[in-house]
Amino acid sequence: MFNKLTKEDVKSLEAMLPGRVLDGKTINEDYYHDELGTAFGVPEVLVKVLSTQEVSDVMRFAYEREVPVVVRGSGTGLVGGAVAIHGGIMLDTSQMKSILELDEDNLTVTVQCGVLLMELAAYCLDHGYQYCPDPGEKSATIGGNISTNAGGMRAMKYGVTRDAVRAMTVVLPTGEVMQFGRKVVKNSSGYDLKDLIIGSEGTLGIVTEATLKIIPKPEFAISILVPFRSMGDAIRAVPKIIRAQVTPVATEYMSQDVILFAEEYLGKKFPTHASDAYLLLTFDGNTREGVMHDMEIIADLCLENDALDVFMIDTEERSASVWSARGAFLEAIKGSTDQMDECDVVVPRSMVADFILYTHEIASEVGLRIPSFGHAGDGNLHIYLCRDGLEQSEWERRKDLAFLKMYNRANEMGGLVSGEHGIGLDKREYLVDLLGERQIEIMRGIKKVFDPKGILNPGKVI
Amino acid sequence: MFNKLTKEDVKSLEAMLPGRVLDGKTINEDYYHDELGTAFGVPEVLVKVLSTQEVSDVMRFAYEREVPVVVRGSGTGLVGGAVAIHGGIMLDTSQMKSILELDEDNLTVTVQCGVLLMELAAYCLDHGYQYCPDPGEKSATIGGNISTNAGGMRAMKYGVTRDAVRAMTVVLPTGEVMQFGRKVVKNSSGYDLKDLIIGSEGTLGIVTEATLKIIPKPEFAISILVPFRSMGDAIRAVPKIIRAQVTPVATEYMSQDVILFAEEYLGKKFPTHASDAYLLLTFDGNTREGVMHDMEIIADLCLENDALDVFMIDTEERSASVWSARGAFLEAIKGSTDQMDECDVVVPRSMVADFILYTHEIASEVGLRIPSFGHAGDGNLHIYLCRDGLEQSEWERRKDLAFLKMYNRANEMGGLVSGEHGIGLDKREYLVDLLGERQIEIMRGIKKVFDPKGILNPGKVI
Repeated sequence: MFNKLTKEDVKSLEAMLPGRVLDGKTINEDYYHDELGTAFGVPEVLVKVLSTQEVSDVMRFAYEREVPVVVRGSGTGLVGGAVAIHGGIMLDTSQMKSILELDEDNLTVTVQCGVLLMELAAYCLDHGYQYCPDPGEKSATIGGNISTNAGGMRAMKYGVTRDAVRAMTVVLPTGEVMQFGRKVVKNSSGYDLKDLIIGSEGTLGIVTEATLKIIPKPEFAISILVPFRSMGDAIRAVPKIIRAQVTPVATEYMSQDVILFAEEYLGKKFPTHASDAYLLLTFDGNTREGVMHDMEIIADLCLENDALDVFMIDTEERSASVWSARGAFLEAIKGSTDQMDECDVVVPRSMVADFILYTHEIASEVGLRIPSFGHAGDGNLHIYLCRDGLEQSEWERRKDLAFLKMYNRANEMGGLVSGEHGIGLDKREYLVDLLGERQIEIMRGIKKVFDPKGILNPGKVI
Repeated sequence: MFNKLTKEDVKSLEAMLPGRVLDGKTINEDYYHDELGTAFGVPEVLVKVLSTQEVSDVMRFAYEREVPVVVRGSGTGLVGGAVAIHGGIMLDTSQMKSILELDEDNLTVTVQCGVLLMELAAYCLDHGYQYCPDPGEKSATIGGNISTNAGGMRAMKYGVTRDAVRAMTVVLPTGEVMQFGRKVVKNSSGYDLKDLIIGSEGTLGIVTEATLKIIPKPEFAISILVPFRSMGDAIRAVPKIIRAQVTPVATEYMSQDVILFAEEYLGKKFPTHASDAYLLLTFDGNTREGVMHDMEIIADLCLENDALDVFMIDTEERSASVWSARGAFLEAIKGSTDQMDECDVVVPRSMVADFILYTHEIASEVGLRIPSFGHAGDGNLHIYLCRDGLEQSEWERRKDLAFLKMYNRANEMGGLVSGEHGIGLDKREYLVDLLGERQIEIMRGIKKVFDPKGILNPGKVI
């Protein structure tokens, strides 16, 4: 249904982007898959773009030639979203790395899409500000974060990527350049195209620049690590935390096995790993007294609800070590097995304990190791199915069965397929099961409005 | 292009909704217009619905018969959005007033669309919670608030209606009932249909129920009223407030003339009205010290930036009186003239002073009285053009000229047509000017996906 690129086509692209077009064997195999490697596809050409204008030029060309285009940032996705399953052009935005503007009067920063989350975060901190979203994968690009509406650790207090995007420059599949949103706080001016693009996983348009909300950096922050006898005990404390008159920045849960993997992976010790389950909470604010007051309320609440102890993480060094361990969980679990796949469900926060206990049931029922960690404070769990040397067909059978059970249970609980990693290629069938055919049909209709020829990231999401 | 309702049709509707169908002269003329009365239209029938099922039944009927439907809550709109300009069915949701669930574990409240903002706010406070959005018009319905993405006073700290909606039950133009969003905090599960419906002014679907985010009620709040020598002085202090490490809940600006109207309208005195311009700020939090600390930082900042004084509004009574005056500004200005129209632009926050000064220029240039007030902290201004007895054609000439100039200037400043009142019937041409024909075309495409026959609130927004 799509055209293949001819030699002439490749020459035309080279004329557009001299020295930044690769094809055939010159494309590194890393571009055939994403972080988890569940999906596989070989792009016919890889083009490295530097500007909105270049993205527009490439899209005009692709639209006219009816060639599929897949946009790729750092390739840190987990659901096969940025894999070129239909060949065509892979548009690599990782060199669009300029920070274009810091607007201190309006508290925004405007960046190109290829800026890494860690670069943006550091830039803001250096200038006395905080970019609030804090997804675990710091080497993801901002474009990638927007494309999956990445959530991260601080969503409980500060919201997700969607909440941080004020405006975007978007290149449509036709090559037209649009401005969605403005540098404003309120907006009731026509349909919300900005939010439609956010989370659409590069299927409706290409976000080339984004104007993001920042806040003055909170003056003080403190974390506590709270051990519990069991995962059930730990998670059952969470609804009480949510109902308290204090909003932690983060409320993460983690189990002993995951901490042990992280210690091995990083070659560093966690402050404690003697208990079965932990909550890691952070508090921030502008006065030390206020932050300590908040922390003490929650620490007491945890102790009243079966916590075994409360460890203050009150030095920068200790905090960096604990949070770097938290940031390494995915890699650490990956290092513990030969292959894995993941489930990124989000459930109502009151259901987190039940859901995690259910994954333990599934683990023994299906015969798979299923470690997990995640954002207890916002109901978003990261659950990993580990292959552990299983033979291919058996691995797939058990994995599919486990996924089906988990997504069905999430649906029954009023949850959704993905909290922040997206649908990509891998989770499409579960999305249909959960939302129903009619909603998918509406989404397909919207896709057609933006992309009548269906060339932008075909076969993904819907 | 649409069918007119026959006597048979009216009988069918009566069979569906016994005793809740009005037609012809039995429809009160209030239903012919909204709050400002800029647009006019006579519905053929008025139906009062009680449930999602009834809304679905009416829509199935209307879709099959190709009859236009306009949804109406309290009729407090300001841009002709809920006026039946093509006749047809007016679907009155104001009796859908049930509060369906308070979920304290997940911090949500689920309501029918006809619940009034003031009822919802009071219900939440009674239970120890706060519904964060606080639009000025307290007798608007929640459905109406969602349809325009109403912002209100607390947007600076707590966001707008969009930020408070976790999930919605939506009846499509076909009568199908959909669930968009879930009772979850994060979501990366397909295109964001929930946010597409929010702010679509009843043109894509009918929101019949909404699950809304609430927070534990902050323990302490304090307001300050800060007089300045001039509007310029007042607004120039705002960017400094925004950059401070303290986020006020609200930062409203008001001029002396508007305060005087409000005093007359309410028959109550404001704490002070001796100065030309004022900022009204509120701070909240869970400790008195924290709130006082925040307030003092901003009070000092105001005094360093040409404030004449700082009045603490520290009793409940005083606070209620000031904020009720603020809530009455629209009505008070309306009472000061025979007819008025309004401009609800939103501009980058750094541009507010320039924009207000520009409206003063226009006032003398065009020859219209143009009082204004608004949300300085989020860049959303409410600007009123007063007819003051002008002859009809002259009023329209001057008004159109003033609007054109203002929206053009807003566009140049990177602003938008509407911050929270919407586009409705009245602001459509300005929306096209600002977004461009191509974005409107995309919006029309989306409209067609949801409403292939174009029966739901035809002629509005796009």
